[in-house]
Amino acid sequence: MFFEASEKKFELIIHLSEKSLLDLDNSFWHEVVHACNASILSEINNKYVKAFLLSESSLFVWHDRVVMITCGTTVLANAILKLIQLIDSEVIKSLIYQRKNEYNSRGQITSFMDDISELRNVFMGSSIRVGNLDEHHNFIFSFENNYQSDINDETLEVLLYHICPEVSHYFMNGNYSSEEIRGVLKLDEFFPDFIFDDFVFDPCGYSLNGINGSDYMTIHITPEESISYVSLETNLGSRFMKNLFSFVNIFMPKSFDIISFNNSVSNYKYDDYLLIQNTNYQLDSGYDIYFSQYTRINLSNQKVHLLT
Amino acid sequence: MFFEASEKKFELIIHLSEKSLLDLDNSFWHEVVHACNASILSEINNKYVKAFLLSESSLFVWHDRVVMITCGTTVLANAILKLIQLIDSEVIKSLIYQRKNEYNSRGQITSFMDDISELRNVFMGSSIRVGNLDEHHNFIFSFENNYQSDINDETLEVLLYHICPEVSHYFMNGNYSSEEIRGVLKLDEFFPDFIFDDFVFDPCGYSLNGINGSDYMTIHITPEESISYVSLETNLGSRFMKNLFSFVNIFMPKSFDIISFNNSVSNYKYDDYLLIQNTNYQLDSGYDIYFSQYTRINLSNQKVHLLT
Repeated sequence: MFFEASEKKFELIIHLSEKSLLDLDNSFWHEVVHACNASILSEINNKYVKAFLLSESSLFVWHDRVVMITCGTTVLANAILKLIQLIDSEVIKSLIYQRKNEYNSRGQITSFMDDISELRNVFMGSSIRVGNLDEHHNFIFSFENNYQSDINDETLEVLLYHICPEVSHYFMNGNYSSEEIRGVLKLDEFFPDFIFDDFVFDPCGYSLNGINGSDYMTIHITPEESISYVSLETNLGSRFMKNLFSFVNIFMPKSFDIISFNNSVSNYKYDDYLLIQNTNYQLDSGYDIYFSQYTRINLSNQKVHLLT
Repeated sequence: MFFEASEKKFELIIHLSEKSLLDLDNSFWHEVVHACNASILSEINNKYVKAFLLSESSLFVWHDRVVMITCGTTVLANAILKLIQLIDSEVIKSLIYQRKNEYNSRGQITSFMDDISELRNVFMGSSIRVGNLDEHHNFIFSFENNYQSDINDETLEVLLYHICPEVSHYFMNGNYSSEEIRGVLKLDEFFPDFIFDDFVFDPCGYSLNGINGSDYMTIHITPEESISYVSLETNLGSRFMKNLFSFVNIFMPKSFDIISFNNSVSNYKYDDYLLIQNTNYQLDSGYDIYFSQYTRINLSNQKVHLLT
């Protein structure tokens, strides 16, 4: 079965006032999530952040900020449009909407340009692509209203493609406890003091959210061999960099991308991998974006995919 | 302006009888070409082969064989279906239909699976994909009717992506004579004794056919920087391999693919390039397919693409 695991994401920041996004009732977030045909599975929270696991990825809410990530054939732009129906769009300081290259872009309901054309009815933003069209790439739409990002406002996204067959089989099997899988993912080592919430999908697939104070992390694993994909995202940013390659090495992917905001990752070298793309761009809102694609140097003969 | 330069291709072989495909009137081929919304620009021929330059790529016709290559948004499957309306499908020994990964697959009128579902009304063939979906790849549909390929029936396809900016600018400029460009392409060195036919497109783009006895070659150049693409195809096969890297080096692309039929290319190493994908598969008709993707090792920081 084909499942498009590559993600769309938005981060929306509002002006802080008496009204916090955390005061909104969960029914509000159910409505936002339903607008893109996903649903909320579970929630963990602390006084800084609510973290929802979704049927397709994750939603995080802070006092003044929302990060929502969805995969599959969801139209995340519809969730943005629903959100700004429910809150006053005047309070919005920044919106960044991202869309990663898809394994099968024809299977998507909308293109990035379709999404942007909807968003432009509300946000006078601009858009870029980092990465060549025939390689991994990211489309980014950004809007800011007298907003400049704090240099410590970092985000790190790590995307793994074609994980090694043994790890793929382990996750396809599905006969593991939550405790076991958390061990495999070295969560205690990589994310000490975080609390976690995870979900094992039927027939396969795994999602995890973690929070610690206002810090968040999320991991999504789609293990099917020919379309396998693993993503990690966290606002630990540069504080996570020392663990990044250990995380990649759990999965030994054929290739991986790093997308970072306000954290230069462009000069890193990783054993067994070659940097094949490298881009840097600063948004009007001050966010410094770095995009890098690495590919594995040691190559084994690949399987041919028999089509029906 | 976006132009999809990546190609679709078919090769059709018929049982030789009194009736040769070369006896068919050109109006026949005009009809086949029009069926996929392309048109014939010019022709060269000898007693073995007719070579047509098309508005979108090329058509070659031999006594018992047709090779047709088209790009843009043409639906090449429609040309196949038109062709078998005009000749008896009982005489067909082999059909191979190929489609390369597109820069923008959403911009195509049909998907490969759409094409195959049409062709399957006539041909009980099977289909494969060589190459990962998130990297360069080729879809191949093949049908054979008691046919086994001759081991000397070789085809070599070389696809170059993102040619170096200086070469891109040269071809964007367009102020060159046919003689000059043939020198740049080293045709006398690579293809001695061939006769050529070429076309310089407005505002840019270049197509060339060459024939020598029953041998053919064709080159198509789309120079626009962010979507640049150059393809070379020839049945010289292994006889061209000694020149292959010199040809690649004219353009110094970011990456290139080699697809070959009955000519093992899997163990070649090229300076400055890393082999990142490698697949081999034998079709029921005996054709041994090799697919390899190479990427340039030395990387300069890439441009960001500003979208409208």
